[in-house]
Amino acid sequence: MNQAKNDRHSRVGMIGAGQLARMTYQAGIPLGLSLRVLAANPDDGAALVAADIDLGSPDSLADLQAFAERCGVVTFDHELVEPVAVAALEAAGHTVRPPLQALRAAQDKGLQRALFDGWDLPLPVHERVMETGQIERFAARHGWPVVAKACRGGYDGRGVWVLESPEAAERLYAETTGVGIDLLVEEHVAIDRELAVLVARRPGGEAALYPVVETVQVGGICHEIRAPAPVAPDLAEAARRLAVRIADGLDVSGILAVELFETGGRLLINEIAVRPHNSGHYSIEGCVTSQFENHLRAVLDWPLGRTDLTAPAVVTVNVLGTPTTGDLLGNLPAALEVPGVHVHLYGKDARPGRKLGHVTALGDDTAEVRERAWRAADRLSKGTEANRDG
Amino acid sequence: MNQAKNDRHSRVGMIGAGQLARMTYQAGIPLGLSLRVLAANPDDGAALVAADIDLGSPDSLADLQAFAERCGVVTFDHELVEPVAVAALEAAGHTVRPPLQALRAAQDKGLQRALFDGWDLPLPVHERVMETGQIERFAARHGWPVVAKACRGGYDGRGVWVLESPEAAERLYAETTGVGIDLLVEEHVAIDRELAVLVARRPGGEAALYPVVETVQVGGICHEIRAPAPVAPDLAEAARRLAVRIADGLDVSGILAVELFETGGRLLINEIAVRPHNSGHYSIEGCVTSQFENHLRAVLDWPLGRTDLTAPAVVTVNVLGTPTTGDLLGNLPAALEVPGVHVHLYGKDARPGRKLGHVTALGDDTAEVRERAWRAADRLSKGTEANRDG
Repeated sequence: MNQAKNDRHSRVGMIGAGQLARMTYQAGIPLGLSLRVLAANPDDGAALVAADIDLGSPDSLADLQAFAERCGVVTFDHELVEPVAVAALEAAGHTVRPPLQALRAAQDKGLQRALFDGWDLPLPVHERVMETGQIERFAARHGWPVVAKACRGGYDGRGVWVLESPEAAERLYAETTGVGIDLLVEEHVAIDRELAVLVARRPGGEAALYPVVETVQVGGICHEIRAPAPVAPDLAEAARRLAVRIADGLDVSGILAVELFETGGRLLINEIAVRPHNSGHYSIEGCVTSQFENHLRAVLDWPLGRTDLTAPAVVTVNVLGTPTTGDLLGNLPAALEVPGVHVHLYGKDARPGRKLGHVTALGDDTAEVRERAWRAADRLSKGTEANRDG
Repeated sequence: MNQAKNDRHSRVGMIGAGQLARMTYQAGIPLGLSLRVLAANPDDGAALVAADIDLGSPDSLADLQAFAERCGVVTFDHELVEPVAVAALEAAGHTVRPPLQALRAAQDKGLQRALFDGWDLPLPVHERVMETGQIERFAARHGWPVVAKACRGGYDGRGVWVLESPEAAERLYAETTGVGIDLLVEEHVAIDRELAVLVARRPGGEAALYPVVETVQVGGICHEIRAPAPVAPDLAEAARRLAVRIADGLDVSGILAVELFETGGRLLINEIAVRPHNSGHYSIEGCVTSQFENHLRAVLDWPLGRTDLTAPAVVTVNVLGTPTTGDLLGNLPAALEVPGVHVHLYGKDARPGRKLGHVTALGDDTAEVRERAWRAADRLSKGTEANRDG
């Protein structure tokens, strides 16, 4: 029998089968791996392309345990796994990477901010909301608007509320109290630019840092990634130091993504993720080693690959569904007419606002590269170009 | 249900499930495709990673027909399919790309040379062997040694004999007469360099030409590919014109590979293949669009991608099994320590002489790039570096 199919030790299993698992699956093929995925649904993006699918729920400890039994290393496509379940896998002797402590910090913004405060890392001014009236008192000190965030479960703009007034705070208490939603309140930062930086880290601490990129968000959803970010070298270096500090502090294994605000020449930490991240999709063609390959190498404790850019300017544009998107594969030939673009589709049906894929372009000039990436993305989504200057 | 899974029109099926199908499968994922493969064995390289495998024999018309029913376009990982079976698929209305006429020319060197003679293309002096004594008479005119080739079925040095004497010719007649092996005899060309050029071609004739590369063969097996080939621009241009002439003449759809001898400043055609080819593996990282992606785009009649090099020097080294190779995945971490190399494993068990994978490196300087690619390949095969200067 074939060793690649049967060597449990090098068999990586990923909990979740969305586009991150799909692209990780793709990255595993040249390494002789066949990533195993735990898919909630046979139509999940990675389940459509993977040879070995376990159907099961990330909420079921039995499903997680059965899955882990068939894998040498367990890792994650998303952070929506109960900490108690991850603790049970670790207690049963399974190798879980990243480990629970890193996963918990990514899952729970309250815990994350408490940890980062302890490490003196730069954050927006924030408080855990423990009682009604606290948001208003916070705003009295720091000014309206303020930003409220659910400690757990938010993504792509969900779980974040910009509150303009005491009335808005009252409405939020009414919506969130007693339903298990814990809140943070933060100052509303005047953002000059949003940045992100990835680091791949092996269990022993060896790390490979990616270039700092600019992310352009619209309505809380990342629309565009520009690499490298047009920032001063010392600011980029500070961002990279922050990423290493966090990766070491949390003992991350695999990819850590750190999203940052640039405001008045300073950096503030916005979010982290301990898995491959949308801000790193550019790395598939734009870096010598993609975040997906380095995630696999890191969780297998193999030497990491070089992370330098393969071109002076790399731009990734997300393809978001619009009411007129229709048949993505039908739109694809027109997008492929745009010269030198790399299209990545996630195998999803089109729905407005849904991330359906992305397009990456490379070149010498950011403006020229952006134009091509947006043109192809627009042809895929059949959307307007309204967000192009966002 | 998900469109990517169910749209038969855009469902490409590949007959054969070796490493070419494996790498084509990988290239299909970002395009939203899930390549279907007809695998003779569940442990075939592509069968290990593909979501949709049909187990069946390329020698069984029933298996081929059942497979074609589930595909919108049928294409090939190898040329070992009987022409009569391909004719039957075409007659039944299936879309077969490349079409039978192109496949037959690649399958049968006798037919191929007859066609190319008719088009006045440059070939080694050659004859179809119709009777005993003919090789000796050919050698009397052109000198010993001569090269005999089986018209069908040879690859990686098999089916090629360098004959030094009438006695060797006698032995070959004895081995081949009456067992269905048709022979060609050719002059023994003094080869200065072996070159290869790929072209991707859509059914309507739109073509994308790849750079001319140098291939380094040892014992008839390709060991190394260097892009671009270190040849004069006019020779490279002549090679590219030949490839387009052949692609047009055969009405190729998909990838055509043309292998050439450079001898005394001239080009002679050695072999062709009408599928992705070992000489194009460098294109995965070394060109803007890989041969595998462009094969899919071509057989789907989609716009082709750019083929220019992504670095001044690109080198691919094949990983061939040695008696000491052992566990390839076990050897992989050491290979990944070499900076900036791209490893591709085919999911095969190691056997001496077997192509198990390849390594590609990119950079500014060919010597430096070669050194890295060979170092990583040697660590994978645990072989000697004896062939490095081949």
